Amino acid sequence: MEKVVIAEKLKLFSEYWSPKIVGELNGQHVKLAKFRGEFVWHKHDDEDEMFLVLEGVLKMELRDKTIVIHKNEFLIVPKGTEHRPVAENEVSVMLFEPATTLNTGDTESDLTKHVLDSI
Amino acid sequence: MEKVVIAEKLKLFSEYWSPKIVGELNGQHVKLAKFRGEFVWHKHDDEDEMFLVLEGVLKMELRDKTIVIHKNEFLIVPKGTEHRPVAENEVSVMLFEPATTLNTGDTESDLTKHVLDSI
Repeated sequence: MEKVVIAEKLKLFSEYWSPKIVGELNGQHVKLAKFRGEFVWHKHDDEDEMFLVLEGVLKMELRDKTIVIHKNEFLIVPKGTEHRPVAENEVSVMLFEPATTLNTGDTESDLTKHVLDSI
Repeated sequence: MEKVVIAEKLKLFSEYWSPKIVGELNGQHVKLAKFRGEFVWHKHDDEDEMFLVLEGVLKMELRDKTIVIHKNEFLIVPKGTEHRPVAENEVSVMLFEPATTLNTGDTESDLTKHVLDSI
């Protein structure tokens, strides 16, 4: 059992939209990711998804509004809700979601990551 | 759907060892808690537990070692592992654990909270 130092893990990767697994508990993954630009619209039919902003500003576009999430704020996107993360500048986030969650949900795209690295 | 501003939630309570529910996803609770002093030794037979330190320093005593967790670091304590959180000064933490998790695990004490408030 070892603690995880988030800042050290964030130094280990630079690619955007490619979550890395940094912890697992109760069938859930704790992931770190860096976002920049616009992701694809998608939803997760069976999984709620949590975005905790560590650095930067994340805009979560929903079909009816946009929620701006700053450092030390989080948003839980319920299952079945279409959403699109947008980051004008680089943002670092921590994600909590079931181990089964695919990053692009029901929208297969070039951004889809079927296999995630653990770091 | 609304974002959660962690700093604002932390202002809403001051009692120690009394986790507050600030989010729920996939059967898991996101909780905020403030610790100060020594908790009781306990374990959770069926639940892994995650401690993310937001402010202060948390010492997690295990039977064979102590892990010191600083701000922006986290520790996952696996199910069945005896542990005791200790905070010499006030520490604020975010917890992730199944909705079924009892704060003192298998050790009933004055510190046991059977019902948690949502804030």
